[in-house]
Amino acid sequence: MEIMGRHVLLDLYGCDAKLLNDFEFLQKLFHDTAERLDCTIVQEVFHRFSPQGVSGVVVIAESHLSVHTWPEKGYAAVDLYTCGDPTKLDLMPEMLKQALGAAGYEYKKHPRGFVPADAEKAAS
Amino acid sequence: MEIMGRHVLLDLYGCDAKLLNDFEFLQKLFHDTAERLDCTIVQEVFHRFSPQGVSGVVVIAESHLSVHTWPEKGYAAVDLYTCGDPTKLDLMPEMLKQALGAAGYEYKKHPRGFVPADAEKAAS
Repeated sequence: MEIMGRHVLLDLYGCDAKLLNDFEFLQKLFHDTAERLDCTIVQEVFHRFSPQGVSGVVVIAESHLSVHTWPEKGYAAVDLYTCGDPTKLDLMPEMLKQALGAAGYEYKKHPRGFVPADAEKAAS
Repeated sequence: MEIMGRHVLLDLYGCDAKLLNDFEFLQKLFHDTAERLDCTIVQEVFHRFSPQGVSGVVVIAESHLSVHTWPEKGYAAVDLYTCGDPTKLDLMPEMLKQALGAAGYEYKKHPRGFVPADAEKAAS
């Protein structure tokens, strides 16, 4: 049995509402976050909602990093699925808490993709 | 206390390896899946890996739907975060199992974003 990766769900509360609505700031923050976690960026897509809020996804070679913000609630939902080296994952909550001026967060890490060892043979 | 949304993690095993490497098929499948779940599509980004595998993210007004495939293992990792109506979510596993010819799947639904009721006032 092989674990394919880890899916991290990070909820940040009491964030700075202005930052949660700052499109360019969020683009740079999540680009930089992916790099600091040693992810290999392959594509990025960010979308500005009206009247407020931003969604962004950084597609990485190891899977994806996403953010969705609700400035009116001071809330940001982040997730990262990575099949890569997990050693730096735990840096993310404090890094983003500081960057977004969050009062607190909830951080959960779900191992997923329990692929049987003989799956490679079966799929070929 | 208000729940912002539900994050669904769906792991599909024993899938048809050819379908997991078919870029156009996956683009259409996940576009259609988002629509069938009543999601509002705002942007889509798909990436083909070398020598194989596809990553795709459909950014929706309600957050995102993503897929990452490992054809060599017959494995596809899907996630959907939605702050929208959750009633159709449970249709997704069987819909994708059939479409990808999967032998089985694991489906988990995580409620997330427990925002305090007074957050709106605090963030303004």
